[in-house]
Amino acid sequence: MSLIVQKFGGSSVANAECVFRVAATITNTYKEGNDVVVVVSAQGDTTDDLIEKAKEINPKPSKREMDVLLSTGEQISISLLAMAIEKLGYPVVSLTGWQAGMRTDPNYGIARIDRIDADRLKAELGRRNIVIVAGFQGINKYDDITTLGRGGSDTSAVALAAALQADLCQIYTDVDGVYTADPRIVPDAKKLGEISYDEMLELASLGANVLNNRSVEMAKKYNVKLMVLSSLHKAQGTYVKEVGDVEKMLVRGVTRDNDTARISLIEVEDMPGKAFTVFSLLAKKNINVDLIIQSIGRNNTKDISFTVASSNLEDALGELNDNSAAIGARSVEWTDDVSKVSIVGAGMVTNPGVASRMFEALYQANINIHMIATSEIKVSVLIDRKDAERAVVAIHDKFTLSK
Amino acid sequence: MSLIVQKFGGSSVANAECVFRVAATITNTYKEGNDVVVVVSAQGDTTDDLIEKAKEINPKPSKREMDVLLSTGEQISISLLAMAIEKLGYPVVSLTGWQAGMRTDPNYGIARIDRIDADRLKAELGRRNIVIVAGFQGINKYDDITTLGRGGSDTSAVALAAALQADLCQIYTDVDGVYTADPRIVPDAKKLGEISYDEMLELASLGANVLNNRSVEMAKKYNVKLMVLSSLHKAQGTYVKEVGDVEKMLVRGVTRDNDTARISLIEVEDMPGKAFTVFSLLAKKNINVDLIIQSIGRNNTKDISFTVASSNLEDALGELNDNSAAIGARSVEWTDDVSKVSIVGAGMVTNPGVASRMFEALYQANINIHMIATSEIKVSVLIDRKDAERAVVAIHDKFTLSK
Repeated sequence: MSLIVQKFGGSSVANAECVFRVAATITNTYKEGNDVVVVVSAQGDTTDDLIEKAKEINPKPSKREMDVLLSTGEQISISLLAMAIEKLGYPVVSLTGWQAGMRTDPNYGIARIDRIDADRLKAELGRRNIVIVAGFQGINKYDDITTLGRGGSDTSAVALAAALQADLCQIYTDVDGVYTADPRIVPDAKKLGEISYDEMLELASLGANVLNNRSVEMAKKYNVKLMVLSSLHKAQGTYVKEVGDVEKMLVRGVTRDNDTARISLIEVEDMPGKAFTVFSLLAKKNINVDLIIQSIGRNNTKDISFTVASSNLEDALGELNDNSAAIGARSVEWTDDVSKVSIVGAGMVTNPGVASRMFEALYQANINIHMIATSEIKVSVLIDRKDAERAVVAIHDKFTLSK
Repeated sequence: MSLIVQKFGGSSVANAECVFRVAATITNTYKEGNDVVVVVSAQGDTTDDLIEKAKEINPKPSKREMDVLLSTGEQISISLLAMAIEKLGYPVVSLTGWQAGMRTDPNYGIARIDRIDADRLKAELGRRNIVIVAGFQGINKYDDITTLGRGGSDTSAVALAAALQADLCQIYTDVDGVYTADPRIVPDAKKLGEISYDEMLELASLGANVLNNRSVEMAKKYNVKLMVLSSLHKAQGTYVKEVGDVEKMLVRGVTRDNDTARISLIEVEDMPGKAFTVFSLLAKKNINVDLIIQSIGRNNTKDISFTVASSNLEDALGELNDNSAAIGARSVEWTDDVSKVSIVGAGMVTNPGVASRMFEALYQANINIHMIATSEIKVSVLIDRKDAERAVVAIHDKFTLSK
């Protein structure tokens, strides 16, 4: 008998039919003699609908009240899923974030899970109940409801798996595993049987949209065995775990991320502390900066370019504008008509030719590169959005990833 | 400076415009220097929509999961109302039932408030926050969410007023006070300036639909000064409190209740314990029985007739059917095509002619009476539903209540 944590996203429980499909997956796992803890997101467009409702009343509501509002989405899901499982005749109990003991830090909207007080969870498992937990939400030290931010249900699932020392954490999604590229762009993309945490981390943060990266970080930290698989049809998924022989496949996959925008600070005075000023301002606002390029100084000035998530563009520009005196740039330019295309693979660092092969593929496809960034296991380029799909295909071909 | 509890029903917060009207009422009260605690129900048809969602999945969900689901309705309301008050620039915090310390008994769906752990509430008031509390919901000793049943938000408000020793508990509704009869039926019905708890109790339980009767019982018990007033326009409402001179108005009002159904057990064996058997079965299922009539025994049998709320009819018939052997009636008959019409007035008990004047009015209107029940401060009759409105008008005229 194993303890299995299963996570289902919002599209998996969008309507009654979907809810029963998910309920069948859960009860089948339970019937095989496993303890089952399920994490579920808000149904379909519920979260967007709730945000719409809020904006109608207040375009800038406090994050605290926003979390009170948004957390109802998952609460609806857990009760409906529990009702479906009751209908199928299995013992079940639903728990909200606070009932499940999901203690987070105080940051509304983007809270991180500090710990899980698992007494209630363990008691319910002891009663042989299937336990349905609301994803994406928790409770902070003020006993206020917090949400973990978009994709937070993955993190909820991994945190529960870690706290309960689960044997496996299954993340059910609308794809049936991790591919070498998005199969909608590259039809002969290949499903990976397994992938390392680090590779998955790069893929997640690069817009592969399969797993939220905070959840992968946590899985790595607590050594939680993850599996990404389809909620729609039965098929072996992709295991995410510590992988032994990282050298055997050089490049794991190609990803495209459209959720990116570039900001350029033109002619910033070339003196120490400028970069610190800019990026600490953004960090204080919880805006993650991704690629950063700083030009070589010229005429006592330099240009600083960087990318942020599209959703952060407005906030970032506002912050830069509010502090324009301290930054002292001649102008601030931006565009969100760009995409980030990346290759990921743990063996990359020891194989110096990888980046140049990628650039060759782009050159042959006549695609211009605006920015480049590399890490030990990835190479990313920023290009015009219109070129992004062609770039993914060209790179995938170049590395013959479908083989 | 006073502490005022204000309660707004679901239609008062049905859309953004309504929410801002309510927010204005609240902030005006706050601006006058008062501490304000607000109880709010789920928006418009939210609760019905959620019930619909549940039925689609499971026609007989557990009451526990139903409460998890339904409590989201009020949680949405409190956050939206708080956002509106934030928009108006006032300090505000929303609290769910469990955050507000609304401890209830364990009975899902029909929970009663046991006590209020008011520490958080008092702390928020101490910070000069307007506090918005989710009505209709609480938390039981298992740390599970409970709901108080329909109309429970009134009870939440009164319980909060009692726990916080509020100076006044204002119940905002879609009528502007308590009338001598439903103004839609009797156009010249008169608004009462004040009414006693007991009279209000009878009116509430008789279908006046102004205040939930559990809330009035609680107000009486803890001597909470209530006021019923309009959420739509400013006007003096009706005070509900201990009234000094109860004799000065004989009959307070006439009410009609369509939410009633009659069940008759025909030819039950005439032996001790039969009534106990029947009514204890129903009590166990939490079905309230209202009027009860037992015929005089004849041929060693008797007939037992009683009324229940229409919504309980199916459950009651099911229960009687399941226990038909123990009850041993020849047949069970029922109708829900009836209405209960009642007169209420604290002075009634000392004025023996009141009931007969009521019967005279019905006789003159050629309306047949099926059942009669009297208490110290009310007389109720069960009549055909088609006659109900005519009956109210005739009785209102007979007692010249518009004077």
